[in-house]
Amino acid sequence: MPKPVLTILAGSRPVTGLEKLEALAEVRLARNSEELAAALPGTEILYLWDYFADGLRQSWGRADALKWVHVPAAGVDKLLFAELADSEVAVTNARGVFDAAMAEYALAGILHFAKNFPQAGANQRDYRWQYFPTSNLAGTRALIAGTGSIGRATARLLRAVGIETDGLGRTARDGDGDADFGAIHASTDFAAVAGNYDYVVLAAPLTPATRQMLNQDVLSAMRPTAVLVNMGRGELVAQDALVAALTANGIAGAVLDVTDPEPLPASDPLWDLENVLITPHLSGDSQTHLPALAAQFEQNLSAYIDGRPLANMVDKRLGFVPAG
Amino acid sequence: MPKPVLTILAGSRPVTGLEKLEALAEVRLARNSEELAAALPGTEILYLWDYFADGLRQSWGRADALKWVHVPAAGVDKLLFAELADSEVAVTNARGVFDAAMAEYALAGILHFAKNFPQAGANQRDYRWQYFPTSNLAGTRALIAGTGSIGRATARLLRAVGIETDGLGRTARDGDGDADFGAIHASTDFAAVAGNYDYVVLAAPLTPATRQMLNQDVLSAMRPTAVLVNMGRGELVAQDALVAALTANGIAGAVLDVTDPEPLPASDPLWDLENVLITPHLSGDSQTHLPALAAQFEQNLSAYIDGRPLANMVDKRLGFVPAG
Repeated sequence: MPKPVLTILAGSRPVTGLEKLEALAEVRLARNSEELAAALPGTEILYLWDYFADGLRQSWGRADALKWVHVPAAGVDKLLFAELADSEVAVTNARGVFDAAMAEYALAGILHFAKNFPQAGANQRDYRWQYFPTSNLAGTRALIAGTGSIGRATARLLRAVGIETDGLGRTARDGDGDADFGAIHASTDFAAVAGNYDYVVLAAPLTPATRQMLNQDVLSAMRPTAVLVNMGRGELVAQDALVAALTANGIAGAVLDVTDPEPLPASDPLWDLENVLITPHLSGDSQTHLPALAAQFEQNLSAYIDGRPLANMVDKRLGFVPAG
Repeated sequence: MPKPVLTILAGSRPVTGLEKLEALAEVRLARNSEELAAALPGTEILYLWDYFADGLRQSWGRADALKWVHVPAAGVDKLLFAELADSEVAVTNARGVFDAAMAEYALAGILHFAKNFPQAGANQRDYRWQYFPTSNLAGTRALIAGTGSIGRATARLLRAVGIETDGLGRTARDGDGDADFGAIHASTDFAAVAGNYDYVVLAAPLTPATRQMLNQDVLSAMRPTAVLVNMGRGELVAQDALVAALTANGIAGAVLDVTDPEPLPASDPLWDLENVLITPHLSGDSQTHLPALAAQFEQNLSAYIDGRPLANMVDKRLGFVPAG
């Protein structure tokens, strides 16, 4: 049986685990949209290793044999254009690989503000030994928007350090019986419940329903002492309203791994805010994520070749991998 | 029965819970060493609310009725001068009050470097969106010097987030059966075992045996990727050797809540090191530590008045409250 044709949109990034893939498939490497267009005819499987690239939509007409697109990322919002969503082509993602790192990132961001490290840094740059207040996590409350695998891993970690943690999902659910969250509120009640929390963590997929879910109403409802951690997508936040709230101390601080747009332009007012910590979309990364991504795709490729079901199938209508 | 005379060396700090103490004892407030000297004759109980003050030694000859000194701090190293140590006067400390905050501080410091927040801050000050590596805690190893209540609370928190945690104590003990630590190594083996850890946390009391325990030999043995968190005493560290190691990237970073001396002079080279985070001796503090300290002393004062045993008695020969 001939090997399936696997095209890897690699960009300029070295492809981890390439040799193993070449043993399983006829591999074509594309560094950019032009090379992708040339490689697509006959391609059965597309691996968007450089997942920030956006070449498939333009070349969709040339995808004459495409059966499966894999994105080694958690969010697939940039990929799900109408023709792909309406097609029979399967889309899978890297569900699970980023969970541990992102949970730790959220905790790091929370502790950064609880222990007032921004003030420590400012004092240090002035060579100033001067006392400032700090606070404990024990007894505080967090709300995590997103009840998928990342949100749940985050909830488990925050609960392990003594933070009472609720969720925000598509539909409200009683916390009784939920392994990870106390209550789960409906996203439509975000503004109504936001005032009950010390920490708000965004770990939701970007969909039409979640775009700008953290809006002016939610910001106004949040505690002045509250800290936001966004590790979902920049577009989950009404960013102008966030800048205004941070500037006016409407909330205490924000840790932003994602922004709108990315890269964040040097002229953006977020950079200058002392109560903001910005990281360049790396919260899911670690010393182990590249080999983990490679192993995850290789396993799914073996399943595909053997005719077994693919893991981590994205519901293209919902825009994410449903639970269960 | 007359109330006992309680002198509070208050410095300029408001004394939390003063009214309750005045109900139990005849309270004398001393703001400085001179007022302490005047108040000491007849004083049965001395409460060193301003525990950084050093007035008792000079006025020791006037302590004609002293039975008990309470320090609302964990470390009593500054207090234990020879005449007090050799006397019948009881010394108690604030064992337990700082545990949760200090455990969280250690975790905050570890995550600060694991998630490379120093690099994030440097990039942000340059308006630069630029990727940098980060790492996960899962699978890393920490060594905690100090197996008292602070060290144990820290061990429990680090283990709760997936860090394998060993202890360093006066004597080596097999980890089997220890509730909080894996292995416990002897302090004398510090240099021999230091290379096995990603994180080294100092939470030991300052005694002749622990002074400069983190010396050149230990620093040389530590991993170049290792991070130090010192929340014990600055004098636990050979600070010149630490500066040299941090400058030469012999270790990756340090989070220092204590320094030698304190306050750290503006001219000290530690301030300028980008791989150092300095906080001004606050790791045990939080939104709840002042009322907790007040309640703890009030309870012990009630015990004293009722003739019950005092809690948290310092072994003045060892220099700390022994376990058990």
